Amino acid sequence: MASSTEGQVITCKAAVAWEPNKPLTIEDVEVAPPQANEVRIQILFTALCHTDAYTWSGKDPEGLFPCILGHEAAGIVESVGEGVTDVKPGDHVIPCYQAECGECKFCKSGKTNLCGKVRAATGVGVMMNDRKPRFSIKGKPIYHFMGTSTFSQYTVVHDVSVAKIHPDAALDKVCLLGCGVPTGLGAVWNTAKVEPGSIVAIFGLGTVGLAVAEGAKSAGASRIIGIDIDSNKFDTAKNFGVTEFINPKDHEKPIQQVISDLTDGGVDYSFECIGNVSVMRSALECTHKGWGTSVVVGVAASGQEISTRPFQLVTGRVWKGTAFGGFKSRSQVPWLVEKYLKKEIKVDEYVTHNLTLAEINEAFDLTHEGKCLRCVLALH
Amino acid sequence: MASSTEGQVITCKAAVAWEPNKPLTIEDVEVAPPQANEVRIQILFTALCHTDAYTWSGKDPEGLFPCILGHEAAGIVESVGEGVTDVKPGDHVIPCYQAECGECKFCKSGKTNLCGKVRAATGVGVMMNDRKPRFSIKGKPIYHFMGTSTFSQYTVVHDVSVAKIHPDAALDKVCLLGCGVPTGLGAVWNTAKVEPGSIVAIFGLGTVGLAVAEGAKSAGASRIIGIDIDSNKFDTAKNFGVTEFINPKDHEKPIQQVISDLTDGGVDYSFECIGNVSVMRSALECTHKGWGTSVVVGVAASGQEISTRPFQLVTGRVWKGTAFGGFKSRSQVPWLVEKYLKKEIKVDEYVTHNLTLAEINEAFDLTHEGKCLRCVLALH
Repeated sequence: MASSTEGQVITCKAAVAWEPNKPLTIEDVEVAPPQANEVRIQILFTALCHTDAYTWSGKDPEGLFPCILGHEAAGIVESVGEGVTDVKPGDHVIPCYQAECGECKFCKSGKTNLCGKVRAATGVGVMMNDRKPRFSIKGKPIYHFMGTSTFSQYTVVHDVSVAKIHPDAALDKVCLLGCGVPTGLGAVWNTAKVEPGSIVAIFGLGTVGLAVAEGAKSAGASRIIGIDIDSNKFDTAKNFGVTEFINPKDHEKPIQQVISDLTDGGVDYSFECIGNVSVMRSALECTHKGWGTSVVVGVAASGQEISTRPFQLVTGRVWKGTAFGGFKSRSQVPWLVEKYLKKEIKVDEYVTHNLTLAEINEAFDLTHEGKCLRCVLALH
Repeated sequence: MASSTEGQVITCKAAVAWEPNKPLTIEDVEVAPPQANEVRIQILFTALCHTDAYTWSGKDPEGLFPCILGHEAAGIVESVGEGVTDVKPGDHVIPCYQAECGECKFCKSGKTNLCGKVRAATGVGVMMNDRKPRFSIKGKPIYHFMGTSTFSQYTVVHDVSVAKIHPDAALDKVCLLGCGVPTGLGAVWNTAKVEPGSIVAIFGLGTVGLAVAEGAKSAGASRIIGIDIDSNKFDTAKNFGVTEFINPKDHEKPIQQVISDLTDGGVDYSFECIGNVSVMRSALECTHKGWGTSVVVGVAASGQEISTRPFQLVTGRVWKGTAFGGFKSRSQVPWLVEKYLKKEIKVDEYVTHNLTLAEINEAFDLTHEGKCLRCVLALH
């Protein structure tokens, strides 16, 4: 099946970040055809995630401008470059900022999902083949972002960064399986490996925190304690499995002490889903002596550091982190989509706003507000 | 078998720390008979460990004076209090600063060796029954230390803190199985769970670091990199399994970078066996992205903190710690003694000096020197 645009430059609409902290503008962008081992995708729906906002803010020292942000999306393959065998035009896909090549030291280790194959290119906003971006505006190159750049009607990604999914899944929903929801579920299932009966604490009840709650509930946790400075979040959080709520503002004692007192010495597992280094410390220290495990899920601003007394570790606590919840992207995103189709995991419930690409700056504003979980933008 | 001293106060020699940082003095100490669930032990041999020196220095805010230090020793049960069933007079034993009751939340968890049964008493230098010490000099109470106080010809410990061992084992050797050697072996076997083929880095080549090397060798590590600022330690370290040596003083780059360059991205497991918080950071950061695990084994001075960028954890490194190598003391110290008798683990090789109780201050001086691994003091 050849599309009429195959091999041609496609001119389409994209939201371009010209410089940090300035509103994105909708531009006519030229998207070059995919080269060898590349895939051009028509993006139908993209969500916004806090990492987009972080890089857009200019605080990310690795952020490159001008660029096309976006990394939580779904679409349909428009055309493929030479050597691409795993997807073909017409396939429904989710672009994956975490690649999976199956061949590198990382993929072959069996211990991590952090494929290293294309990182040297995606980390600097270009494609591996020629170390150049596929986006341009009147000849001026526009950088890629996280190897995905989904704030565009068409994007080009490496073939190791494309998960082919079941065509029955609604793309305006499963776009969320490109980042936040798997990150939370996987933090519980893959990184912490929460067992039935465990007591769990979740710091931050945004999309990722709620996905942690859902993962913990499905893992059989007996108590799921949600911690957030916005008490309005508790009502929604209950629907995702949170059984108890603590607002640190309601307590004078350090939050780790409050939690320890409530749980006979601490929780079995804790998850930091905010990106705040002092909360990361509280999350570690509220876990139980002897076996408590704390997982850093949130992304802290550049240059910030976590700290604690080493005694916390020597007395049996474990400090870990997770990226994309430890899921192997191309292998496991399709599996998550199937779980969604079987109604085994929530996705619809995270979508609180539906907007269009033209409304992307409003979507950023909404993302900063406590009432929004995920804004999904329709691109066509 | 009743001893002639059963039920009597025993007056014997002990090295008393009257105040921080002052030489210990050999005193005639009265040792009260054991109360219910207590055991009085004739200590035949004790070694010195850096934790004794740390508390003696006055830097340990929980240190209580006057006290009788010492926690790495072996002896023979002299008498037992009411309700003691697991040992009887004449049994060869190793006192265990880490108790194992088998009944508390910690023991029953199956996840940790950190029994909580007697900690409330041993942490403040007394016995559980009456919250008083069993040592006195002319009526003045002398505090216990770590629930063991082995710098005395007789000591009283809780029954949950006594490991009965095979009578064939030489007590002047297996006294080392009370602390340092199990800590190193267990950090590898129980806490890190090093697999065959792993690359291991060890920071600090004292007794604990060498026991880590031995444990890593027996676990099948392919490369065992020893790091120490004293290059003279390498010759000895080879005998314990260290295959490569790095002296940070020979390099201008940060040691984590040196190690990463030598190992194609970092080691699989690292162990900090010094107690230096900046080395703990290097030890974490020299491990491989995606799966590196770093174990804090050394004890840092009070109030000091470890720190790193959370990115280190988010990209798959794990930070843990260990106490007594994760070994369950009463169950597993006897097993270690049997392994020693079968020549499956080294012990003799760590004993570099044999002295008497009267020479204990010299022994402390030797312990601070790089040439000494373990000083063993004969108490009778």
